Amino acid sequence: MQPFEKSEYLARIEKTKQAMAKQGIDTLVAVDPANMNYLTGYDGWSFYTPQAVVVGERLPEPICCTRAMDAAGAKLTTFLKADSIIGFPDHYVQSTERHPFDYLAEKMRERGLDRGTIGLEMDAYYFSPMAYEALKAKLPNARFVDSKGLVNWVRAVKSPREIEYMSQAARIMERVMRVAVDAVEPAVRQCDAVAKIYAAQVAGTPEYGGDYTSFAPMLPTGIGTSTPHLTWSDKPFVRGEATILELGACRLRYHCPMARTVYLGKPPQKLLDMEKVVLEGTQAAIDAAKPGATCEDVEAAWRRVIARHGVVKESRIGYSVGLNYPPDWGEHTMSLRPHDKTVLQPNMTLHVIPAIWMDDWGVEISECIQVTDRGAKPFCDFPRKVFVKA
Amino acid sequence: MQPFEKSEYLARIEKTKQAMAKQGIDTLVAVDPANMNYLTGYDGWSFYTPQAVVVGERLPEPICCTRAMDAAGAKLTTFLKADSIIGFPDHYVQSTERHPFDYLAEKMRERGLDRGTIGLEMDAYYFSPMAYEALKAKLPNARFVDSKGLVNWVRAVKSPREIEYMSQAARIMERVMRVAVDAVEPAVRQCDAVAKIYAAQVAGTPEYGGDYTSFAPMLPTGIGTSTPHLTWSDKPFVRGEATILELGACRLRYHCPMARTVYLGKPPQKLLDMEKVVLEGTQAAIDAAKPGATCEDVEAAWRRVIARHGVVKESRIGYSVGLNYPPDWGEHTMSLRPHDKTVLQPNMTLHVIPAIWMDDWGVEISECIQVTDRGAKPFCDFPRKVFVKA
Repeated sequence: MQPFEKSEYLARIEKTKQAMAKQGIDTLVAVDPANMNYLTGYDGWSFYTPQAVVVGERLPEPICCTRAMDAAGAKLTTFLKADSIIGFPDHYVQSTERHPFDYLAEKMRERGLDRGTIGLEMDAYYFSPMAYEALKAKLPNARFVDSKGLVNWVRAVKSPREIEYMSQAARIMERVMRVAVDAVEPAVRQCDAVAKIYAAQVAGTPEYGGDYTSFAPMLPTGIGTSTPHLTWSDKPFVRGEATILELGACRLRYHCPMARTVYLGKPPQKLLDMEKVVLEGTQAAIDAAKPGATCEDVEAAWRRVIARHGVVKESRIGYSVGLNYPPDWGEHTMSLRPHDKTVLQPNMTLHVIPAIWMDDWGVEISECIQVTDRGAKPFCDFPRKVFVKA
Repeated sequence: MQPFEKSEYLARIEKTKQAMAKQGIDTLVAVDPANMNYLTGYDGWSFYTPQAVVVGERLPEPICCTRAMDAAGAKLTTFLKADSIIGFPDHYVQSTERHPFDYLAEKMRERGLDRGTIGLEMDAYYFSPMAYEALKAKLPNARFVDSKGLVNWVRAVKSPREIEYMSQAARIMERVMRVAVDAVEPAVRQCDAVAKIYAAQVAGTPEYGGDYTSFAPMLPTGIGTSTPHLTWSDKPFVRGEATILELGACRLRYHCPMARTVYLGKPPQKLLDMEKVVLEGTQAAIDAAKPGATCEDVEAAWRRVIARHGVVKESRIGYSVGLNYPPDWGEHTMSLRPHDKTVLQPNMTLHVIPAIWMDDWGVEISECIQVTDRGAKPFCDFPRKVFVKA
């Protein structure tokens, strides 16, 4: 039933323990849902209540702690033995008197995990200051340190099976973008186009069903293209306006994202000029993404191209991508930007998205790539351009 | 362009300031995306990087702080003046050296908001311990307290316009559940049914487009019905199995959720018996949800019914619902459970969802209700039963 062999989970846990040893961490409390999934297979939309996977130096296998009603889901989706699954009682949920991590701390103490150095994911989603304070108060004999994205970094290089799932997501992504480009038409309500996008994302292909993506479809339109991260309204698309489609596809929680820009009518020359710059810069970045190059080298290749055209962009042009849960398909490790000296290795996977936002317009064209021995390879086969629909 | 008149936002801010004064809070840092939206209208899928709305006792209007690229989105979606919108530079994003809330703290200091008592949403999503530590370190002259869901509680009683949006969501919800019940058929892949569900959620009605819901569609099937919060796979539905449909509809970020159970084939007697108990108990809870009653009174009404039938359920049977972003449409205020002594008032809105999970099966049938002067009124008009498809 699990998407990976048990041996793959065990290898991930072993790598995690090695990284823990290097960082002097005895016990790791992973709260990031993607890290929980990576280590145990746990999968459910239950991250709206506190939960964690605990990896202990001497624990035979990780502990998975969820709300009691979700412990049944942990039994169904993980390889863990029943006594490694802990459900906190429901009166801990959204209580003003007690926190679920009071309960987790108690269970950790019972297992002798209340001493030594405990690594916490200090900047993870779904780990609140209150949860942090609960652990500190209830485990007074432990020393707490930031894990610095320890499991995220273990995830950075993908296994062949992970690449396979991202490739399946890519097949879905190609269909989704085709549907999306076709759906953006004058007088069509944005919501009706997005309905088709969602349907394509989830139906997937006849071979591979799609999963929910960690971002909702984003499709700023008109003046909205000057900013990312706007979703949609029930207003119609308008002739003479651009729409940015920043979409994803997901297979078994592994993502392949893609952005394209659609213009309804005759695009202004500045948009067409910018398209050329972005395409040239994107190709330069992809060509630079070879094993041994650093993340900042990749960005520099892009920057050289756009500088020649007098274009300036301050924000990063990409990030590691793969396994995740809402609200982000990025993995919070590598960023393609100055000062990121991470050395690229085969089977790292990145979303190269050098978006340009101007005062009242913008362009996005992106590729999700796999670093291979011979250089970067886009996951998708889809025309890389601004789609002009007359 | 905004879904509410500016006067409604100003009234919300005024109520928030009154609550702040009562709790001795001079400055409130709201990081919950729903609270940010409630206070300013800000709307975008940007909560994957740190952001906040700051309400100051003496500030003329709130400050909205987002990533620089999202400041343009704040200009488009809020009523705030340009100098109330702050964008932190991109090198703060997922950096190991600096945190976006270092920047926020600096901007707060510039505005004299670095002293007195600062209220923080200590258990909010998207507020990490690292963000908390950044504020503490950079604002050493302030005293920090938990806001105890201050804005969430201001949100508890809905305005007429909010009720209108939830009613529009209800019209969408009725369509969504009809589509979902129809789509669950033997040999149909789960993902193909969910594709139809998403399409119905987002297309909405001819009058009202749908928004993304804060939960993905959840549809545990077969043995999965013994647990909530499982999503779907590409396996087909199977005759002789139940499927729980826990779905929502969303209009301008306002939700109306609904759960129903579908059985393919002839259901076992225990399921039909439980259906009766759940329906009787649910009606008792709804009848009890009158102004002046407490949340625990409502749960007690349910509990009396199920106790008579020898059924035990430990988890809460409902919660406040309305405005929210992923991962939860609940508002983290009232819970229908023992010891919750919140007194119900007209225009409070609740999701009554007394789900039953047994060892290897379960039943869910829910209603989203509005408390009115005369008692509770379900938002939706949809058959309340287990759908048996022969």
